[in-house]
Amino acid sequence: MTDAMIPGASEHHGGPGAPISAEQARREQELTDRVVASFANTPGNPRLKYLMETFVKHAHAFVREVRLTEQEWNLWIDFLTKAGHITDDRRQEFVLLSDVLGISMQTIAVNNEAYRDATEATVFGPFFVDDAPLIENGGDIAGGAPGEPSWVEGTVTDTDGTPIPGARIEVWEADDEGLYDVQHTEEQQVYGRAHLFSDEHGGYRFWGLTPTPYPIPNDGPVGKLLDAVGRSPYRAAHLHFMVVAEGYRTLVTHIFVEGDPQLERGDSVFGVKDSLIKTFSRHEAGEPTPDGRQLPPDRSWSSVRFDIVLAPQGA
Amino acid sequence: MTDAMIPGASEHHGGPGAPISAEQARREQELTDRVVASFANTPGNPRLKYLMETFVKHAHAFVREVRLTEQEWNLWIDFLTKAGHITDDRRQEFVLLSDVLGISMQTIAVNNEAYRDATEATVFGPFFVDDAPLIENGGDIAGGAPGEPSWVEGTVTDTDGTPIPGARIEVWEADDEGLYDVQHTEEQQVYGRAHLFSDEHGGYRFWGLTPTPYPIPNDGPVGKLLDAVGRSPYRAAHLHFMVVAEGYRTLVTHIFVEGDPQLERGDSVFGVKDSLIKTFSRHEAGEPTPDGRQLPPDRSWSSVRFDIVLAPQGA
Repeated sequence: MTDAMIPGASEHHGGPGAPISAEQARREQELTDRVVASFANTPGNPRLKYLMETFVKHAHAFVREVRLTEQEWNLWIDFLTKAGHITDDRRQEFVLLSDVLGISMQTIAVNNEAYRDATEATVFGPFFVDDAPLIENGGDIAGGAPGEPSWVEGTVTDTDGTPIPGARIEVWEADDEGLYDVQHTEEQQVYGRAHLFSDEHGGYRFWGLTPTPYPIPNDGPVGKLLDAVGRSPYRAAHLHFMVVAEGYRTLVTHIFVEGDPQLERGDSVFGVKDSLIKTFSRHEAGEPTPDGRQLPPDRSWSSVRFDIVLAPQGA
Repeated sequence: MTDAMIPGASEHHGGPGAPISAEQARREQELTDRVVASFANTPGNPRLKYLMETFVKHAHAFVREVRLTEQEWNLWIDFLTKAGHITDDRRQEFVLLSDVLGISMQTIAVNNEAYRDATEATVFGPFFVDDAPLIENGGDIAGGAPGEPSWVEGTVTDTDGTPIPGARIEVWEADDEGLYDVQHTEEQQVYGRAHLFSDEHGGYRFWGLTPTPYPIPNDGPVGKLLDAVGRSPYRAAHLHFMVVAEGYRTLVTHIFVEGDPQLERGDSVFGVKDSLIKTFSRHEAGEPTPDGRQLPPDRSWSSVRFDIVLAPQGA
């Protein structure tokens, strides 16, 4: 028993650019039309009907445009099968695939339309945790995570510049090994994440860590694909934000580190927007900190300003 | 830890048809362009580069056209995850998905271009077995499979009508329960399949079974999808052929049974071509058979003619 199509049949096809006959074009279009029509009786879910019809049109257009060979079709089935088998509660290869093809980021884009100068959104990623600890404004999210301290401050306002007090700000980031707390499987420690609220003037401030670049998990089929196309699995260094305030569109975003060489090489999941690249100022060990915190005498630190502008709900 | 995007963010999007701003359209197109450009340095495999670039263009066009919500994106990730987990050596849910969306059939179509009056190809399916028994012309492929005997005969010729002797003809079909031998997991029996060769005049003939309709496996995510869109999982009744002859394009096809009600309801994998629907003539019990075979006295039978026309190799 085999689930393969006929190997070798592909050698007969003309390949992209080879002209096809009018009869051949008619047969291919008739097939697409027939598949689209098969969703005509979708009961009580016009959105599902529309999604399936449109998906089929694009999938068929792809097969026809590239003149997909049966061998290539087999490779794609095999890729999906391997992605399915590596996926479990801790590893999501299909999300990685969507990420490295920019599909996740495009989904973010269409759900967070440009609105005046509202802060741009980017990918959510797989490392958010509900119920991260609450800290006071000015507190430390590191919670013992190793890395260089970084002072982060800014305001939360609407697009007219009016401060938004009481906005819930979730922040999370990797340690200086490029790993999130949840990736350290041997420990149950929560670190490098917290939530806080903007003050009565819309201001916020906290200690985090200077972000460091890290690769997405690349020991599976998605990693093999990136290798095959000569792409880096590394994400540009970043710090995650999610900002929730009544009456405003929830903002999921990152800030990136100006000068990070990975910004030139390309972020593996296409999360970078120019407007999200921020200057992390360097401070030598011993330089006084904004809040008077005493760091170890040999400890350098950084500081960054990130002013957050929320779009109105429904924008 | 969660791999979900933000639930609820989707309520803010405009949905298909809602106008987007020029700035929004620019951002979306810029993202697609950036992802396409990421394949520019694919080493030594221009075909892979082209496939990935074209796939990304179509995938992004889909997301943008339907204004895919984050909740819908999550459902799609969940669907692929479930499909991956049900897939094993005996069950291939990704092939089923490709089949019910007509993607398999479209791949067959682009690899078997129309050529004069060459017999049309259709899906290979998952039930072919290498090394099915050899039978003489006029022999029986049933091998004990339960069902109504059916006399099948025809010729193998090229598109000028010249007979092709010695063509290898593989035939396989389900029994009258709609199951192939390989689906009877408790038995090792081989039945309902064989191969034979066309004679010196290009003629062939054998006893098989009158085909019966059967559902594709529908207890997984693909079955749930078919339910949700109001589609039948049944395939139209058919008999599989694969015909191999030196100098000719290998033909993988079926013949279907004129009058099968499933032809009206629609074949679940879109394998039907009008040219492949054949008249299975009905014969009462006791009517003399073409080769003088003595059937049980209460046994009706059918007969069908299928003349096979092969395209030249490379057509």
